Amino acid sequence: MKEKKIVPRKLAGFWELDPEKEYVFEYVLDKIKDVFYKHAFLPLDTPVMELSDVLLAKSGGDLDKEIYRFEKGSTDACLRYDFTVPLARYVAMKEGELTFPFKRFQIGKVYRGERPQKGRYREFYQCDADIIGFEKLSLVADAECISLYDDIFSNLGLKCNVEISSRKILFGLIQDLKKEDKFNSIASALDKFEKIGDIVTNELLKEIDLSEKERSVLLEYIKICGNFSTIKSKLEKLSKNEMFLQGICELEQIDKHLRNMNVENYFYNMAIIRGHNYYTSCVFEVFLEGMRNLGAMGGGGRYDNLAEYFTEKKLPGVGMSIGISRLFDVLVQNNLIAVDVDKKSKASIIPLGDNLDHCLNLCSKLRADSVACEVLFEDKSFKSKLKDANRSNVPFVIIVGDDEVSTKKYTVKNMQTGEQNQLTYEEILNVLR
Amino acid sequence: MKEKKIVPRKLAGFWELDPEKEYVFEYVLDKIKDVFYKHAFLPLDTPVMELSDVLLAKSGGDLDKEIYRFEKGSTDACLRYDFTVPLARYVAMKEGELTFPFKRFQIGKVYRGERPQKGRYREFYQCDADIIGFEKLSLVADAECISLYDDIFSNLGLKCNVEISSRKILFGLIQDLKKEDKFNSIASALDKFEKIGDIVTNELLKEIDLSEKERSVLLEYIKICGNFSTIKSKLEKLSKNEMFLQGICELEQIDKHLRNMNVENYFYNMAIIRGHNYYTSCVFEVFLEGMRNLGAMGGGGRYDNLAEYFTEKKLPGVGMSIGISRLFDVLVQNNLIAVDVDKKSKASIIPLGDNLDHCLNLCSKLRADSVACEVLFEDKSFKSKLKDANRSNVPFVIIVGDDEVSTKKYTVKNMQTGEQNQLTYEEILNVLR
Repeated sequence: MKEKKIVPRKLAGFWELDPEKEYVFEYVLDKIKDVFYKHAFLPLDTPVMELSDVLLAKSGGDLDKEIYRFEKGSTDACLRYDFTVPLARYVAMKEGELTFPFKRFQIGKVYRGERPQKGRYREFYQCDADIIGFEKLSLVADAECISLYDDIFSNLGLKCNVEISSRKILFGLIQDLKKEDKFNSIASALDKFEKIGDIVTNELLKEIDLSEKERSVLLEYIKICGNFSTIKSKLEKLSKNEMFLQGICELEQIDKHLRNMNVENYFYNMAIIRGHNYYTSCVFEVFLEGMRNLGAMGGGGRYDNLAEYFTEKKLPGVGMSIGISRLFDVLVQNNLIAVDVDKKSKASIIPLGDNLDHCLNLCSKLRADSVACEVLFEDKSFKSKLKDANRSNVPFVIIVGDDEVSTKKYTVKNMQTGEQNQLTYEEILNVLR
Repeated sequence: MKEKKIVPRKLAGFWELDPEKEYVFEYVLDKIKDVFYKHAFLPLDTPVMELSDVLLAKSGGDLDKEIYRFEKGSTDACLRYDFTVPLARYVAMKEGELTFPFKRFQIGKVYRGERPQKGRYREFYQCDADIIGFEKLSLVADAECISLYDDIFSNLGLKCNVEISSRKILFGLIQDLKKEDKFNSIASALDKFEKIGDIVTNELLKEIDLSEKERSVLLEYIKICGNFSTIKSKLEKLSKNEMFLQGICELEQIDKHLRNMNVENYFYNMAIIRGHNYYTSCVFEVFLEGMRNLGAMGGGGRYDNLAEYFTEKKLPGVGMSIGISRLFDVLVQNNLIAVDVDKKSKASIIPLGDNLDHCLNLCSKLRADSVACEVLFEDKSFKSKLKDANRSNVPFVIIVGDDEVSTKKYTVKNMQTGEQNQLTYEEILNVLR
């Protein structure tokens, strides 16, 4: 009697690619890592789990319903939902040993127990880079984080635009209106502006009890957009508040640094607000050029105090992030990745008759000469092996029969053109490399 | 009043390296991946969690105390404790789409809720490669998996020895003694032989109710070790059992394939048993040359049926694994990794006086010319910047003062030798690349 089988299935909303696609994903990760290294960032890889009181420190121990939490023995732990809290925990623990500014990147999986839907995952890849200062941090750090986008997207053969704004400018403006106590509600209403437009944003602001004049100032503000000198002259007409002017002055510094760094693909857009309230000054989002409608592929900004829940030390920082799982989906769907297949198998070797031994030897020689390849060793027909080679997209097939073994000239078939040649080992090396 | 801080701490036994070490670890992973690619394996990256009934299918749903399990809403899930079950789940799900033999590797974190102790982690990295056949799988696959070790360890600048055995030979021998019903207990006693020696193993076998003659056969068997012809002649004196002889015959085939593949660092050792009972034939373990006392750095073997809990289809396979977290600890403790620092920062640029802008520009040019570097932009003294550069082990420091800017010759200090030179941009490129 057959036993009952368990239906093999994956958790819904959890990230898993087929190996051919995973190869491409790994290629994208490597391209991104290369840029971080070039900018002198080093990697950090924190555990997937953190103690619940540590992970939930920010929210005063409140358990958000989106977080995976569990207990085992006396351990109460959660799966990480971002890399910011783990970074804060790490820096607070190691603060005495680290050299500041501390620059690290982290690429890995994060977890959100949301209902899975198209484009939304419960397990997905995130990519962060942060620069943390000790007590203070130069505005060069903000420019450095923004400049990473330009380099990363060009390393992937893509063009991006970074749109920059400042929560300090917005705060100054709201201070001017004497509505500081409503800053979060106003910021959250303005954050929706690009999606919902003038009329609905106006309604939202009305609900926060803002006068018509106040609303019109904010709606004028949110539309300010352009290069630095354009936005500067428009902003200066709106307020003389000290924090407002300080925010403009900071953006001016960052703008100068970006120009010195030869960064070009950016402009200023006051409609960029960023949801997280821990940002305190410059904020930014990145979009694929010509595909702004797909939404931001990442964002970041400046925060005053990374680890305030863990240490008395003031650790200001600036960070940038990319939602790589989402970016990857967009790149694949729009056919935007030109992957070099350098690491993939260059040849499938097919033995005819009794020549498996010779093939294994040939394969081992090619690998020693740095050529990725394999022998199709299974006891299948020549035709079905050719079909397997075709399905695996291998560029060449090497056929080894008795003639080939005696003449030491192998039949090499180009799988794209169908062309077939008799080649010596050295000639094969030249073709495959 | 200051609020109470939460003590920042990491879960005990969870893997986390400081960035300088993480850089080395990433280097090791890349070296290993390169070999998998060269052998025409592609990557698979399954979720960290699996549904509990899927993950525990093997054990009939029993929850091992070592497994992290939790419920969220209607989801009952566990953290993976190895890559074999996720592979079985994946292959069973995709079986109609895959080309067999299916070759994949997976490198990632696995979870075991054990009490943490030196050298034992609760979260650690594992690395697996498997070849899965459809209904049948050639013995070339076993040789291919064994050959991976040789390539991987040499790619890391190390030498290894693979020790090979066969559970089929052992099973045949035990069949001969008519003790098949006690196979698992006998295998488990013999598995301890290398740690506990003759006398204690003999005691363990006595407890399983084996006669003196039976025990002496097994103790003779377990000591058989050497190249193939040596072990063959010794084994043939022990039994004429059919399965026993078939096991020898399989090792003979594998041996021939290994020689054809030019693999050298291996021999046969009947004391290699492997704990997992799903292995059905050839099994092997890998040791660092000259450091056998440190224990196996990995192992693997042949199994008859990868996914029997999920599908009626027979999917025989062979797999190899490396405990990379453990291997990494051993390599670091014994100073055995020679890492090239290719990706790390080559230069820290220190502005003197008012030359930050010039430095940012120089840095951007160097990066565009593929040199990893950074500006030490913080407002610190020259002396403390030099100290920071020294701590970060950067090979060169570029000092940019007014003279340097006007002459376009920069002061370049070699941090190892202390030597200082005035170099043009082109000369710097030559030195740094």
